[in-house]
Amino acid sequence: MSAELMRRMAELAVHVGANVQPGQVVSVGARPDTLDMVRAIAEVAYRAGARFVDVPWFDPWVKRTRLLHADPDTLDWVPPWYGERMMRLGALSAANIALASPITPGLMDDVDPARAARDRLPATREGTDVVMSGRLNWTVVPCPTPAWAALVHPDLPPDAALARLWADIAHVCRLDDDDPAASWRTRGEELRAAAARLTGLGLDRLRFRGPGTDLTVGLLPTSRWVGGGDQTVDGLRHMPNLPTEEVFTTPDPARTEGVVASTKPLDVAGTIIRGLRVRFEGGRAVEIAADHGAEVLRGRVAADEGGARLGEVALVDGSGRIGALDTVFYDTLLDENAASHIALGAGYPNGAGPEDRERVNASQIHVDFMIGGPEVTVTGVTRDGTEVTVLAGGAWGV
Amino acid sequence: MSAELMRRMAELAVHVGANVQPGQVVSVGARPDTLDMVRAIAEVAYRAGARFVDVPWFDPWVKRTRLLHADPDTLDWVPPWYGERMMRLGALSAANIALASPITPGLMDDVDPARAARDRLPATREGTDVVMSGRLNWTVVPCPTPAWAALVHPDLPPDAALARLWADIAHVCRLDDDDPAASWRTRGEELRAAAARLTGLGLDRLRFRGPGTDLTVGLLPTSRWVGGGDQTVDGLRHMPNLPTEEVFTTPDPARTEGVVASTKPLDVAGTIIRGLRVRFEGGRAVEIAADHGAEVLRGRVAADEGGARLGEVALVDGSGRIGALDTVFYDTLLDENAASHIALGAGYPNGAGPEDRERVNASQIHVDFMIGGPEVTVTGVTRDGTEVTVLAGGAWGV
Repeated sequence: MSAELMRRMAELAVHVGANVQPGQVVSVGARPDTLDMVRAIAEVAYRAGARFVDVPWFDPWVKRTRLLHADPDTLDWVPPWYGERMMRLGALSAANIALASPITPGLMDDVDPARAARDRLPATREGTDVVMSGRLNWTVVPCPTPAWAALVHPDLPPDAALARLWADIAHVCRLDDDDPAASWRTRGEELRAAAARLTGLGLDRLRFRGPGTDLTVGLLPTSRWVGGGDQTVDGLRHMPNLPTEEVFTTPDPARTEGVVASTKPLDVAGTIIRGLRVRFEGGRAVEIAADHGAEVLRGRVAADEGGARLGEVALVDGSGRIGALDTVFYDTLLDENAASHIALGAGYPNGAGPEDRERVNASQIHVDFMIGGPEVTVTGVTRDGTEVTVLAGGAWGV
Repeated sequence: MSAELMRRMAELAVHVGANVQPGQVVSVGARPDTLDMVRAIAEVAYRAGARFVDVPWFDPWVKRTRLLHADPDTLDWVPPWYGERMMRLGALSAANIALASPITPGLMDDVDPARAARDRLPATREGTDVVMSGRLNWTVVPCPTPAWAALVHPDLPPDAALARLWADIAHVCRLDDDDPAASWRTRGEELRAAAARLTGLGLDRLRFRGPGTDLTVGLLPTSRWVGGGDQTVDGLRHMPNLPTEEVFTTPDPARTEGVVASTKPLDVAGTIIRGLRVRFEGGRAVEIAADHGAEVLRGRVAADEGGARLGEVALVDGSGRIGALDTVFYDTLLDENAASHIALGAGYPNGAGPEDRERVNASQIHVDFMIGGPEVTVTGVTRDGTEVTVLAGGAWGV
């Protein structure tokens, strides 16, 4: 692939996404098929003054071998050094760069979902805690791979599919703008303004209505909307996701009711879940059905008490670049920024005020799925009882 | 490459080399270019009952980027989690499998040797200590790669070079025998018998004489010869190197005198050192010269007080399979088993009795270089003053 595009993506990740500072340790989560991007990022990071670029490689094929062949009594065991490393990164106020791309489709198809649900590596409890604690300036950026290209563009020959995926991703990451960093500053300001308007409404709950969907999501008394970037506890700005087109908040984990149909497929650790339908009662997902892959999501959700409850609700208007492509990327980073979505599992503490921090969903999972689109209308009811149209036909009503 | 050869090599590493036990954690040191072998080993290890196969990947290209671009003040910094992980592996009595192959030739040619000497990763002090403490059942096996094949067989096209290297390595690892494990049991017995004969002589010192070489290596009062395998502190047998054709002991770090010329080139972290000549005085290497790469070895040796002193002397007779190929592999694992050799740096505690443990070289480096061959004669003087011929023309004299 074009070394120039790779370099621009690496610069975006280091300078705009993580906003790496001189002297920082930089962790770059990697897989064997993201090797070239990791090397490009390492070079940009060292030139930016990184103290050390550490690469925790992880190979899904080795994980698959474990899931197929390991003694069932051992599957819950997590090497303690995985979590200890994350706590060290937190203590060092390190930068963290993750590369998003689906693993090879079908890789986990012959794995028992009940076994798969017991191994969340490379994710760890400590990793979730450290990220949620705001110690790291972190980002997730997409990394095109041949396997991903074949999934998104199955009708093209391999080289053309990869070139097309790179072109799409360069476009949605605004690498084709003269100054991508400036473009993201502008888009970040737009998203922060939308978030401020939503927070200003003082919403008590949201209601999503569309084909197969009538879902009410209750918010916390102090829920506030966030978008266009974040900052660490030390005040260092970073962009947790690039591209980002969403504004999101932290809902009340006890107040989701109704039914929802996903509007895009989603990839959960190598299994594509299609035609997902979920029914909520008293905040809990009490029924999970799908045309394909429901058992994988059920297994994931059973991880802990908060796994079946919401941790995030996010709104995406129609002005972003991803939705306009009308392409399913089978990767949450891109697909969640094409459509409004909700997430089962952990909530972001910065989406609520300090008084409500105890009520934020503290699960160890976080699985987004897309529930928005042009046919889905989002209304809200404010804490003083006024009903407002929030999103209709992809346009902000507020 | 042949998946069948890969599988046989993986089985050799797991069952004969490390001798992995059910329930053990298995660490497999890896590079991006050893991916296929790592996956093969993971499968064999999980089928053998491994609790977890952990793969600490390391990319020499990322290291090169650090050595080229990082702030000089940061080069001594080692992420604490590298050593902490090794101590955890020791506490778990884990198995450790390392894959030997030279990194891409020339990769480090534009790196300042003084900078390179300050970064020994992925090696760590804790890793050396844990291995030397006998807590791990460990092995090093060769892993053919395209870069290695091009180095050993530069005149062949890439596919043919790799096939030829695999054939050579399968042969020296006895994978072409009906039962490689049985072949290594037999060879291990031969080496243990040779070691026992040498220990029985009660040698005070060895003298190597050949072209450019007249070197006397003093031994410790309790130096004993080891070969054909080792065992952990818990009594679990393993083969630290496969192939192995050597018997070795731990010399007195204070009693090496004279000059020695290496009989093969050696690879030190990506630099090939050719035509090496070293002069020792009072146990220290006081002059290091070479036709190419001397400064890299000088930098390495300066790591600590013991870096310029010997930690190992090893004898290889002419009956092994590697020397017979008359091929330079540019990898210590193979080349050191083709010819008698010495190592600068750390000594193996099991090469001396408990009374002398304090005198064993405790350096953090261990660099072998080959000094033997058909033209080099090795004589010994016993503690009661008798001179004996130890090796002449590649044949044991004892």
